[in-house]
Amino acid sequence: MSTRTLHSLATACGASLEGNAALAIRGPANLRDALADEISFCGAARFRAELERTRAGAVLLPRDMTVERKDLALLRCDDPSKAFSQVVALFAPQYQRPAPGVHPSAVLEAGCELGEGVSIGAQCHVGARVRIGARTILRAGVELGEGVQIGADCELYPRVVLYPGVQLGARCVVHAGAVLGSDGHGFEPTARGWVKIAQSGSVLIEDEVEIGANTTIDRARFGVTRIGRGTKIDNLVHIAHNVVIGENSMIIAQVGIAGSTRLGRGVVLGGQAGLAGHIDVGDGVRVGGQSGVTASVAAGQELWGTPARPIKQTLRTMAHANRAAKFEQRVQDLERRLAELAARCDAHTPSSKEQG
Amino acid sequence: MSTRTLHSLATACGASLEGNAALAIRGPANLRDALADEISFCGAARFRAELERTRAGAVLLPRDMTVERKDLALLRCDDPSKAFSQVVALFAPQYQRPAPGVHPSAVLEAGCELGEGVSIGAQCHVGARVRIGARTILRAGVELGEGVQIGADCELYPRVVLYPGVQLGARCVVHAGAVLGSDGHGFEPTARGWVKIAQSGSVLIEDEVEIGANTTIDRARFGVTRIGRGTKIDNLVHIAHNVVIGENSMIIAQVGIAGSTRLGRGVVLGGQAGLAGHIDVGDGVRVGGQSGVTASVAAGQELWGTPARPIKQTLRTMAHANRAAKFEQRVQDLERRLAELAARCDAHTPSSKEQG
Amino acid sequence: MSTRTLHSLATACGASLEGNAALAIRGPANLRDALADEISFCGAARFRAELERTRAGAVLLPRDMTVERKDLALLRCDDPSKAFSQVVALFAPQYQRPAPGVHPSAVLEAGCELGEGVSIGAQCHVGARVRIGARTILRAGVELGEGVQIGADCELYPRVVLYPGVQLGARCVVHAGAVLGSDGHGFEPTARGWVKIAQSGSVLIEDEVEIGANTTIDRARFGVTRIGRGTKIDNLVHIAHNVVIGENSMIIAQVGIAGSTRLGRGVVLGGQAGLAGHIDVGDGVRVGGQSGVTASVAAGQELWGTPARPIKQTLRTMAHANRAAKFEQRVQDLERRLAELAARCDAHTPSSKEQG
Repeated sequence: MSTRTLHSLATACGASLEGNAALAIRGPANLRDALADEISFCGAARFRAELERTRAGAVLLPRDMTVERKDLALLRCDDPSKAFSQVVALFAPQYQRPAPGVHPSAVLEAGCELGEGVSIGAQCHVGARVRIGARTILRAGVELGEGVQIGADCELYPRVVLYPGVQLGARCVVHAGAVLGSDGHGFEPTARGWVKIAQSGSVLIEDEVEIGANTTIDRARFGVTRIGRGTKIDNLVHIAHNVVIGENSMIIAQVGIAGSTRLGRGVVLGGQAGLAGHIDVGDGVRVGGQSGVTASVAAGQELWGTPARPIKQTLRTMAHANRAAKFEQRVQDLERRLAELAARCDAHTPSSKEQG
Repeated sequence: MSTRTLHSLATACGASLEGNAALAIRGPANLRDALADEISFCGAARFRAELERTRAGAVLLPRDMTVERKDLALLRCDDPSKAFSQVVALFAPQYQRPAPGVHPSAVLEAGCELGEGVSIGAQCHVGARVRIGARTILRAGVELGEGVQIGADCELYPRVVLYPGVQLGARCVVHAGAVLGSDGHGFEPTARGWVKIAQSGSVLIEDEVEIGANTTIDRARFGVTRIGRGTKIDNLVHIAHNVVIGENSMIIAQVGIAGSTRLGRGVVLGGQAGLAGHIDVGDGVRVGGQSGVTASVAAGQELWGTPARPIKQTLRTMAHANRAAKFEQRVQDLERRLAELAARCDAHTPSSKEQG
Repeated sequence: MSTRTLHSLATACGASLEGNAALAIRGPANLRDALADEISFCGAARFRAELERTRAGAVLLPRDMTVERKDLALLRCDDPSKAFSQVVALFAPQYQRPAPGVHPSAVLEAGCELGEGVSIGAQCHVGARVRIGARTILRAGVELGEGVQIGADCELYPRVVLYPGVQLGARCVVHAGAVLGSDGHGFEPTARGWVKIAQSGSVLIEDEVEIGANTTIDRARFGVTRIGRGTKIDNLVHIAHNVVIGENSMIIAQVGIAGSTRLGRGVVLGGQAGLAGHIDVGDGVRVGGQSGVTASVAAGQELWGTPARPIKQTLRTMAHANRAAKFEQRVQDLERRLAELAARCDAHTPSSKEQG
């Protein structure tokens, strides 16, 4: 891995440099692990202790942060976290922007329309009448079914599959192995077994959506399964037929959303959460990891647990459950003491019988 | 998207048309969202209110349902849901039946036998001695390992992988990215770490099974992992080595079934449920979403929760947990009242000591 | 399927044969299901009853185990389980070792270095400057991004995707559809929606790691997501950015590990367990299936439940919950009996009022 001078890094991220401009930096690291030829960052005062101990050669930090040490090169900037990302990207092993054009091993069917600067990677298969917007990149082995439409400036990573008719907006990113437009899981029970219900809709992904590796989004029975603008979906998520997700929502890994459920804007679903079908989840709802949401949720709620409840309620119920052992002891004590007291009363007051 | 006349749609699904036969329909939609150039359906009397309000141009409905409105074209038929599926399919962006034959970019190893009308898509790789039944379709990029056997009239979607020796019956559907026949996860702990146990069996899929996108089914240690006729498996499901699933079962998305577990016929597993290894799940068992089944289950049971219990029992336990706060208050009240009563008794009866 | 003689099987696994050396065996099976042309094994005395009843033609068993039956061919050996695996492998439909070389349909970019005996399968795409160690096998359709490094004696199954810069040690196995090096799910909330945080690190897999089908491992934000030597990962597992896993750990199917969490050595995570981000899990920790680990865990603990607790505590809490119905009845009884006793006291002792 090649090195870069501190001077070039400071320039790249717009920082003011205090220290040896010629220092050769091998890469980025966090404060705790960084070595003398690495650069790190300190974003907030609460990391001051780590800053004072770090063995890093240089550190990005806020313009006004004071530092006791004199042996550390300082790169002062407005937003150390953002500047660090820029530095990190300079060292990163990333897919490079390929030359525009179609790789000779790719197969294009009749009637495709490719925008300016489109790049189709090795072994892609592009179905008939597919339309791809300007500058969009297909990495190796992408499959686009007949009639797929993709906007400008998208990136589809290797082995992504879009079934026929799937529509993707502009500036979308789809990671390797994701499948969009597979049949919804719809079957009717009959005397001779499950009979397939035709899944004849499609999938509509709006602009600026990112979809994680090996995630699956099923086509609608009819109409579209729709993912709203700016929504970010992690790896191995399952989104069933006819689901609708609003803008700027966030779906963490391994979430499953059953058929026809609708999410509002800005919804956040924690990892491995599951949502029942045919429910409505309001704007801004936050659902904790592994929750099971079994009913519709009003906007703004924060839920956790299975079945998912307002998080305070779930925590209270859990706290009671954890106290249960002690609690059972208290009931046992009560039973004993009540029996003793009753015995004393029996000994010193006339019994019903005696009264009779 | 092209349009179709109401006349052509009524003919296609065998409905009697009351209304403008020349009306141009752009596509299907549900009653709530449909517009004047769309067709919808009303399957049951409980949707009558929506039927009276819909802005759809035409509606499929049962032969005997009365409608107040006069502005709506009606397509009367025996089974509106089924007829609607037929209509939907007419508009659908679907994979078309390809011409029989082998795409020039596909690679076939020695000794393959292809039935009549088989179609092998672009960039498929078909291992040695593979046998494929009549009219089966391989979409782009399918991998078939050595000795794979596939029945007639199957469809394998893009990027499906079948490891060597996997057997698929007739009329099966496997969605994109599914992997059948990967090694079971078997390792023995030893002083020098985990040592792999050879996974040398295979996978046997019976007729009319459907398998969802990115689902994985591991090969048996020996013998076969077997999926029974007519069973339908959703996306991102994991089925471990030596699992046996009976006929006509239904496995919803993201379920995981651990090694050597056996399911009977007609079992239904809700999304994200997990089954422990080496257990037996009887015919017709239904397991709710996210349940964790830790022990064998007799036929016909309906379970929910982790660990999974009969659903009524789980609901009762949950109800108690939710009442626990109130309940704790009752115990506190009892303790206070008992103490008061004891104090009163002390004041008015001779103490043990006094008696002594 | 071809058959093998008992003689050849005994030779292959180093067993002493008592019985018909010419007997033709069709394949392996377990004691319960085996037929007269199949071979099975009996690893321990507790399976003696099955051994006496089996219809197998031959059985592998310990050298000192006594058998009543005379009709059964016996193959005596030191480790029947291991010997059986060897026998099973002889019959298995497995990927064969391919001839070294690059398949004509594969695409290699500039500057790749292939070790001796490397085999690159059909339709692979190998990015620029990739380095692959001796004897490593890429099955069909594998994608290696720019600068990927792979050690010797690895096997990558069909459709595996390694993003640029991913490093794999020696003797690793990666099953079909796994994706290594996809972007971590990092986004900052802003007034105009989620803004992507550059994911510019990579993934480092140490020697002898096995990774299951369709599993996803994200690249680090910076530095590496690291999987320790000898760790075995099952299917459909999600490992987020910057996770570090120690040596010889075991991750069962569908587990999810959130960002920056660190696992020690020999950690075992049950199927579908979820781990929160930024926590430390000590050496030898065992986590039960479907658990949700929300906080750091000291070495050696055994946990279960959501939130995960020491398993005994979780079982105790569950036991209390299951007794809750009966328990509520006891409180109700107490309330009734206390009221009765108070009434009796009232009837036979002067009331406070009377005293006043």
